[in-house]
Amino acid sequence: MNITPIAFASTPFKEKFGIPRQPSLIKHANSVIEFVSPYDQPDAFVGLEQYSHLWLQFGFHQHEHAEFKPLVRPPRLGGNKKTGVFATRSSFRPNSLGLSLVELKQVILDKKTSLIVSCPDLLDGTPIYDIKPYIEYSDSAINPQCGIAKNAPSSKLDVVFSDKARAMLHALTKNGYTNLECFVKEVMEQDPRPAYKQQNEDPKIYGMKLYAFEIKFRVEQNSLIVIDITS
Amino acid sequence: MNITPIAFASTPFKEKFGIPRQPSLIKHANSVIEFVSPYDQPDAFVGLEQYSHLWLQFGFHQHEHAEFKPLVRPPRLGGNKKTGVFATRSSFRPNSLGLSLVELKQVILDKKTSLIVSCPDLLDGTPIYDIKPYIEYSDSAINPQCGIAKNAPSSKLDVVFSDKARAMLHALTKNGYTNLECFVKEVMEQDPRPAYKQQNEDPKIYGMKLYAFEIKFRVEQNSLIVIDITS
Repeated sequence: MNITPIAFASTPFKEKFGIPRQPSLIKHANSVIEFVSPYDQPDAFVGLEQYSHLWLQFGFHQHEHAEFKPLVRPPRLGGNKKTGVFATRSSFRPNSLGLSLVELKQVILDKKTSLIVSCPDLLDGTPIYDIKPYIEYSDSAINPQCGIAKNAPSSKLDVVFSDKARAMLHALTKNGYTNLECFVKEVMEQDPRPAYKQQNEDPKIYGMKLYAFEIKFRVEQNSLIVIDITS
Repeated sequence: MNITPIAFASTPFKEKFGIPRQPSLIKHANSVIEFVSPYDQPDAFVGLEQYSHLWLQFGFHQHEHAEFKPLVRPPRLGGNKKTGVFATRSSFRPNSLGLSLVELKQVILDKKTSLIVSCPDLLDGTPIYDIKPYIEYSDSAINPQCGIAKNAPSSKLDVVFSDKARAMLHALTKNGYTNLECFVKEVMEQDPRPAYKQQNEDPKIYGMKLYAFEIKFRVEQNSLIVIDITS
């Protein structure tokens, strides 16, 4: 079956590196879902404001048409143990279809039809194939067993900002990026490095893009030091 | 993007008429999800048995490629009030993509790779495009608002079986249909008739297919009488 994007997500995440796998921990950033014609007709959204949460059925567009591989290496298992793709939410999957629950914050129906939602763990530009309201009685499992994903990961690292980085955060906040320091902290404290790097001594300086800027950081024992932020 | 079925669902529902819109109320029937090559490789299911619930991302295959209509008439509102398609789980939607949570009961990896799951509100033969484990911390909304779908619908009708119907139920139960009487009751007590028929005097005799047989019934005030069951 051929499916067509009904909308595209604008998110702070400009590259795959560092996107947290736990969207519910990201509380200090929003994303915008902007609809395209003919799905942007205001009629299609009548009644949506009565719901607080939405499902996004989206495409892992950077992995489209990848060859089917039955086994994947989930980061939860340190990236070195294989498990079945259907027992994971890995982005490498048949049909490249994803699923994320977001909080609906605002419905905008003038000029460009769009929704402001809590920040999902999605790459900027992700195509959205459907949205549906969250309905508690049919979407909430009773006493679920959740394998290796029992609890949300807790913070792994203390985040420390250099004076230079902090000055840039203040400047950007004045320019309209609200809650930016909290958001950067939320992303960084999950440890954006590849899983196999997280166990060892690691002197490397990493770069990560968020919004329109680059964040440089390194990790020392249990601290992540944000060295610099540049636009 | 082109997507391909990875599996097909075998369910008791052989036609759209009468499929309940509340799968969580159906406790006395199972369905089978049977995978097709190359997605039926046992490796792809390693670790799945650690999860109790699954998401099915499926296709409303009888509505594929229908013209986009921004407004639909949800049965919850009596079938005569229109609301936005994105504020509903209606099967008439862009991309014909559906989403259902089911309980995972058994993983079968010999001969035909298949999963036994709780009975979803799906037509027999529904194509499945992805399955994903239910992960409580990311899939469960906190204090959700759920508009017109706050609670699961309660039973609308008392179900009464004629002697003829009851004799057939007993015969079928002997032939291996377990819990059949309970299942038929679950389907019937939701009132399978179209919403606009549910308010008025209605002498009509209805027929509904379940598994390989036809069920004839009529409604008198608050009772649904199962007149006959034939194969």
